[in-house]
Amino acid sequence: MAEKTLETLFHDTLKDIYYAERKILKALPKMAKGAQSPDLKAAFEKHRDETEGQIERLQQVFEILGKRAQGKTCPAIDGIIEEGEEILDEYKGSRALDAGLVSSAQAVEHYEITRYGTLKRWAEELGLKDAATLLGETLAEESKTDEALTKLAVGAANQKAKAA
Amino acid sequence: MAEKTLETLFHDTLKDIYYAERKILKALPKMAKGAQSPDLKAAFEKHRDETEGQIERLQQVFEILGKRAQGKTCPAIDGIIEEGEEILDEYKGSRALDAGLVSSAQAVEHYEITRYGTLKRWAEELGLKDAATLLGETLAEESKTDEALTKLAVGAANQKAKAA
Repeated sequence: MAEKTLETLFHDTLKDIYYAERKILKALPKMAKGAQSPDLKAAFEKHRDETEGQIERLQQVFEILGKRAQGKTCPAIDGIIEEGEEILDEYKGSRALDAGLVSSAQAVEHYEITRYGTLKRWAEELGLKDAATLLGETLAEESKTDEALTKLAVGAANQKAKAA
Repeated sequence: MAEKTLETLFHDTLKDIYYAERKILKALPKMAKGAQSPDLKAAFEKHRDETEGQIERLQQVFEILGKRAQGKTCPAIDGIIEEGEEILDEYKGSRALDAGLVSSAQAVEHYEITRYGTLKRWAEELGLKDAATLLGETLAEESKTDEALTKLAVGAANQKAKAA
């Protein structure tokens, strides 16, 4: 068995987030459809488009490594998205739905932020400068999305959810 | 069926993180045992002790709500911890193990950061001032732990993992 190095770990984690991004791409239209406020719907639709670009960046990183773009089941994102679907189901028609959807979306964002933060750091350590730049671009987008969700939460969603 | 309000969502999410913290409490000694560097071992042990305090704070928040402290299966943390156990297993004996363990621990921290951030915001919206203070204390601890892990990652763990 070959010695497992930081390169191996970088490649494994890249497959993990590649699987996760494609799963998120499928989940976002469901969240957009379920959201009650037009602002939240729009935020999910915008993030769906961004996710397509993020998947393309990952494919470029695989190319830099000289590897085929390939996912690897990521139980973390499966669990996070499962919780989002529970919210969609259990809070359907209730005024707390949007607040719950925002919190689920932020759990997704934080998973992405931690993974891209790690991958960018490892790319730098490995001297993969172009890969680090690509991963840094996505990291910045994810942080911005998380901030936008916080603003939405503080605004409309929570106001609506508050007991009358 | 009673209308689901922000109070319901707050209580449900409290149960989610209560389950998660107790699961983390069990996982940390395994991570400490597996870690190669004494600094990382110490960080996991320290966070284990902190987690006990965080569980006590959650019990106080349940008390404020007049509810019994009770967990609810959280597939997100189950998935995140499963990935950490995969790292422990697959990278055992390799020089990339610590870098992988740090990345897993940071995924756990980010899940906690997003959940406590949301819960603190909701507690404020609901006028639960003491609960918001307790949740804010834990949020600050989790953010500090995440920063400490980044420093460890940038330092020893990644240096060791780098191919010679």
